[in-house]
Amino acid sequence: MHVTSEQRLDVGVLEREFTLGGIPGILWMPASASAPAPLILLGHPPLGLRRMYPRLVDRARQAAADGFASATIELPGSGDRPRMPAVEQARADMRRAMEAGEPVGAEIVDALVLPLVDQAVPEWQAALDALLAMPGIGGPVGYSGGVMSIGVRLAVVEPRISAAVLFAGSLVPRAMFEEARRVTIPLHVLLQWDDEGNDRQTALDLFDAFGSEEKTLNANMGGHTGVPQFAGDAAGQFFTRHLK
Amino acid sequence: MHVTSEQRLDVGVLEREFTLGGIPGILWMPASASAPAPLILLGHPPLGLRRMYPRLVDRARQAAADGFASATIELPGSGDRPRMPAVEQARADMRRAMEAGEPVGAEIVDALVLPLVDQAVPEWQAALDALLAMPGIGGPVGYSGGVMSIGVRLAVVEPRISAAVLFAGSLVPRAMFEEARRVTIPLHVLLQWDDEGNDRQTALDLFDAFGSEEKTLNANMGGHTGVPQFAGDAAGQFFTRHLK
Repeated sequence: MHVTSEQRLDVGVLEREFTLGGIPGILWMPASASAPAPLILLGHPPLGLRRMYPRLVDRARQAAADGFASATIELPGSGDRPRMPAVEQARADMRRAMEAGEPVGAEIVDALVLPLVDQAVPEWQAALDALLAMPGIGGPVGYSGGVMSIGVRLAVVEPRISAAVLFAGSLVPRAMFEEARRVTIPLHVLLQWDDEGNDRQTALDLFDAFGSEEKTLNANMGGHTGVPQFAGDAAGQFFTRHLK
Repeated sequence: MHVTSEQRLDVGVLEREFTLGGIPGILWMPASASAPAPLILLGHPPLGLRRMYPRLVDRARQAAADGFASATIELPGSGDRPRMPAVEQARADMRRAMEAGEPVGAEIVDALVLPLVDQAVPEWQAALDALLAMPGIGGPVGYSGGVMSIGVRLAVVEPRISAAVLFAGSLVPRAMFEEARRVTIPLHVLLQWDDEGNDRQTALDLFDAFGSEEKTLNANMGGHTGVPQFAGDAAGQFFTRHLK
């Protein structure tokens, strides 16, 4: 891991940009931690770290206020990383379907999401190796991010992840329901009830499928990006219960 | 209101039994409150106050720990109050249907629930008049209890109630969906996801119907009476946000 820049944010958070095997990432640490801080991996949609930065840094500040380190990396095919032609093709197919007012077929969803998950998950695991070797980080690991992307797969294959906050998103490949049944870690699932870009029933079905003995669905009003502050606080309390 | 007994519970809660117009009730006050405490009305199923007491006193202790007074009254037809023959008939019809493995028809649900709601709601409003006149109680009022019973109606007709925690229950009369659309106060709805005695889809449909701009669905595992401690805590935080 190669740290490329370091700055102290106004709220007492230390931000380090890094690259790992050519993949850019960002690590946020509470500036005043006395003991090693548990780590939360911040998942995000494949729109590029630069575009996602404002929302990511909000989540990182909240995590730091709760005593957690947090980190994220650029997804395959996003930002300055090489495009994934098959995924780009599926994205174009999806746009065409949506503009024509047609449902997005299961084949398109599979082609859009599964290659991304297959490539991203080992990268996040490698990032976890490097991050857990850093001073000031220690203890259990959480994942916080979109249901559709890599959270479900990581929860299944990565034993170091002890708890996850998942944001219900649309575009869930059929195979993810099978993987969801194999998830056993505590889950806190956030659903924006009237999210127009999201199929509510798919989110409810996926929540139902998770094999975890402790799982909470927290559904709120306010549109896709309008998660209320109190729902963010509840997610923080979930991590505090499980990672400290 | 006639106070019939008073005792200090071990955890610093003052419990007063009372009668009001012949209806028994219980009031719990935080023993060490310095300012008037906001009041939470504790709804419950029509099984009689004596039988419900252990669960009610748990909720009252939690409310007192959060700085709230709480109170409840005996429902019509329950405990030592006169039976309601038409409701008893509907209950017998329901049992027969359930024992025969048949669905409980909408007419049975209406006959079981609506007369109870019609009679209970004015009684709870009268109790509210008397309780708010007592020293040590003041500020906004919350309601916490079963969705099916009187919470929805109270939320519609009683302007002194500012926020409600509703436990998703089965047996929702069809007319309640229309009333739900007229609810505008902040709601926190608790749903036990794998509650065998409860129809999950009905609970989701009712949550969807509520007209409130702020409404949260908090669904958890653990069976009908297995609401996890952290979900109870979240409900307490909801009241703290809205009643203080």
